[in-house]
Amino acid sequence: MHMHEEKETGRIEGFSDHVFAIAMTLLVIEIKIPSHELVAAKGLTQALAALWPSYLAFLTSFFTILVIWVHHHWIFGLIRRIDHPFLYCNGLLLLFVAFVPFPTALIAEYSLHPDARVAANLYTGTFLAISLTFDMLWRYASKRLLSTNSTRVKNDEAAQITKQYRFGPLLYFAIFGLSFVSETLSLALCLLLALLFALGGWPIRRQ
Amino acid sequence: MHMHEEKETGRIEGFSDHVFAIAMTLLVIEIKIPSHELVAAKGLTQALAALWPSYLAFLTSFFTILVIWVHHHWIFGLIRRIDHPFLYCNGLLLLFVAFVPFPTALIAEYSLHPDARVAANLYTGTFLAISLTFDMLWRYASKRLLSTNSTRVKNDEAAQITKQYRFGPLLYFAIFGLSFVSETLSLALCLLLALLFALGGWPIRRQ
Amino acid sequence: MHMHEEKETGRIEGFSDHVFAIAMTLLVIEIKIPSHELVAAKGLTQALAALWPSYLAFLTSFFTILVIWVHHHWIFGLIRRIDHPFLYCNGLLLLFVAFVPFPTALIAEYSLHPDARVAANLYTGTFLAISLTFDMLWRYASKRLLSTNSTRVKNDEAAQITKQYRFGPLLYFAIFGLSFVSETLSLALCLLLALLFALGGWPIRRQ
Amino acid sequence: MHMHEEKETGRIEGFSDHVFAIAMTLLVIEIKIPSHELVAAKGLTQALAALWPSYLAFLTSFFTILVIWVHHHWIFGLIRRIDHPFLYCNGLLLLFVAFVPFPTALIAEYSLHPDARVAANLYTGTFLAISLTFDMLWRYASKRLLSTNSTRVKNDEAAQITKQYRFGPLLYFAIFGLSFVSETLSLALCLLLALLFALGGWPIRRQ
Repeated sequence: MHMHEEKETGRIEGFSDHVFAIAMTLLVIEIKIPSHELVAAKGLTQALAALWPSYLAFLTSFFTILVIWVHHHWIFGLIRRIDHPFLYCNGLLLLFVAFVPFPTALIAEYSLHPDARVAANLYTGTFLAISLTFDMLWRYASKRLLSTNSTRVKNDEAAQITKQYRFGPLLYFAIFGLSFVSETLSLALCLLLALLFALGGWPIRRQ
Repeated sequence: MHMHEEKETGRIEGFSDHVFAIAMTLLVIEIKIPSHELVAAKGLTQALAALWPSYLAFLTSFFTILVIWVHHHWIFGLIRRIDHPFLYCNGLLLLFVAFVPFPTALIAEYSLHPDARVAANLYTGTFLAISLTFDMLWRYASKRLLSTNSTRVKNDEAAQITKQYRFGPLLYFAIFGLSFVSETLSLALCLLLALLFALGGWPIRRQ
Repeated sequence: MHMHEEKETGRIEGFSDHVFAIAMTLLVIEIKIPSHELVAAKGLTQALAALWPSYLAFLTSFFTILVIWVHHHWIFGLIRRIDHPFLYCNGLLLLFVAFVPFPTALIAEYSLHPDARVAANLYTGTFLAISLTFDMLWRYASKRLLSTNSTRVKNDEAAQITKQYRFGPLLYFAIFGLSFVSETLSLALCLLLALLFALGGWPIRRQ
Repeated sequence: MHMHEEKETGRIEGFSDHVFAIAMTLLVIEIKIPSHELVAAKGLTQALAALWPSYLAFLTSFFTILVIWVHHHWIFGLIRRIDHPFLYCNGLLLLFVAFVPFPTALIAEYSLHPDARVAANLYTGTFLAISLTFDMLWRYASKRLLSTNSTRVKNDEAAQITKQYRFGPLLYFAIFGLSFVSETLSLALCLLLALLFALGGWPIRRQ
């Protein structure tokens, strides 16, 4: 039965991995190559340089999803079994992750537009929704689904995750709020947060 | 030989999982960001709000495919081996699932158009085709491919699936019929059905 | 060492499976939803009906790739190890498979155009290239990479594949030639061949 | 613990494989089918022939990513465990790989344009970035993460990789420099290099 449950968690994790990887790689098709009209007017160098919001949005969304994937993978390494509410919550997380290419394309297109604030609201709001769903997923998993005979290492890891995640929703809530005041600052913080998590949050080094 | 057959079913399931995950994640590229003309006329907030049929269609199709995936996965956990008609039927199911992004984009684009009914016919018709193929897949599998030495738990699960699926094609047939009368109602029922299945139909909790 | 080699073949097969599944599912984004101009002129029903070449092309390419995947999977179940020329040949096969969405979109767009013949040439030519690469892959594998201590069942299967594949390139060569004479007939035969292979060629039932 | 670490490396490799496969297969959607206006003016044969830069760019990028995947897979076969800097470096590699479809589309569109040089700079620059990241990944892995009790075969392989990769970044640096002088030559060398690596660099034949 233990073997069966482990295989079961592996399957759900594998399926989620597909969605994460596809969402990350699909981001690139939202970077549209410059039109011949624009290139005729400004030259290709200028036209490519003008795409910098697209590059930054690609970078931010790519690393954010990568970080979510790493933590998602971490959780799956700790839980012993999967139940109904967990699956539902995981499906909701995948929904928001699969949605990311849309606000990414939007922020790339409208970040220099007078209405940039609205695009920033949706972009940071999507990340807020992801962090809230993730928080819910982990809270539930940590209370119900952890291995009962888990080693001290695993318990330490679980405590480490709880500690690290405590601030996730708060940070994204702050960034979301900030997006109503300064879209530039809120987007810069999104990128910074993804890079910081990427640099500091890899949960590997298990001895 | 048993090991070999298990590996074989695993491969087919893995391949099907790819198609499910890609179809689900591709849905997002059908949500088109609003044009600069529209935004200039109405503002970005209004333009994004006007995309609500796209969001609803994304949500409905995402959860419907997710629910199909969960049940597909459930079936593969019960069967012992795979044969020729089963594979053919599974290929047909994947065809319809891979097709879903097209009627989804269509309903998103034409749900407020005088011809919305036609789009609703195709959308609900695609789900009807999926549920019929799924029903066929399960009927065949339950008669021929179940493990002979299956435990009581597995037999109970099989009976549970049969019971739960009995209404699937009937419900989608009713929704398809309804789409000729009221497209709004038929689409609302599609979403409701996906959410209900998602909430109530996870077949995990095996003790 | 045997375990290692089996894991190695599994990895290459897994990677190839990704490419097959993505190519199959990407086909759908080439079915473009009808424009509002066309729908205003003809109504949505007519506009959707006019897309029949897209549906047929989707169906044909989907089942053709599915059949190639099934046979690819069959080969990988028989070989014991992988070497350099096999990998190169497999990479070439993946290249042609990943290319399929382009001629599919072309045939969907230009099948009713005076230049339909050119589109049919490229479409059938792509399938010819796939069948030739596949033939090369199997010839090489069957001579060099089969398990030395293979059972009689496996040897029978190998002979069965050789027999079945003998006609593959010939058939596609004939269809390619025919596409210079009648594009309609050549495309109909592509679909027929995919369905026939799908119906008759599943190589499972191993006792 | 050893089992656990092996599973862990397997998961990271599996996730990376997804990104490689999706990036390779997405390349095809950047080959745009010719417009009806162009076909009306020149005929479909001419219009398709005029797409040769798209075909070449597809071929070059496809084989380059394939070669990177093969070597990536090779590295993962040699390392025993994964740590934080390795994961970060791997994420950076995936970022550049996922970005490849953009410069590929750009070079396909602008290779015959007066500003072709700029497109070639970005295209070859992306490959330079990939080769530098890859070099960094391998340097780090070869110093820290190799199996301590590795066999002589594995040590030989590690030395072989180090030898083979020494020239990777140098070659791509030269090609990148050349792209400022002759874009045609730099692109031809990109394709040649991918084919040469594909022909000569498969690291299989382990006895």
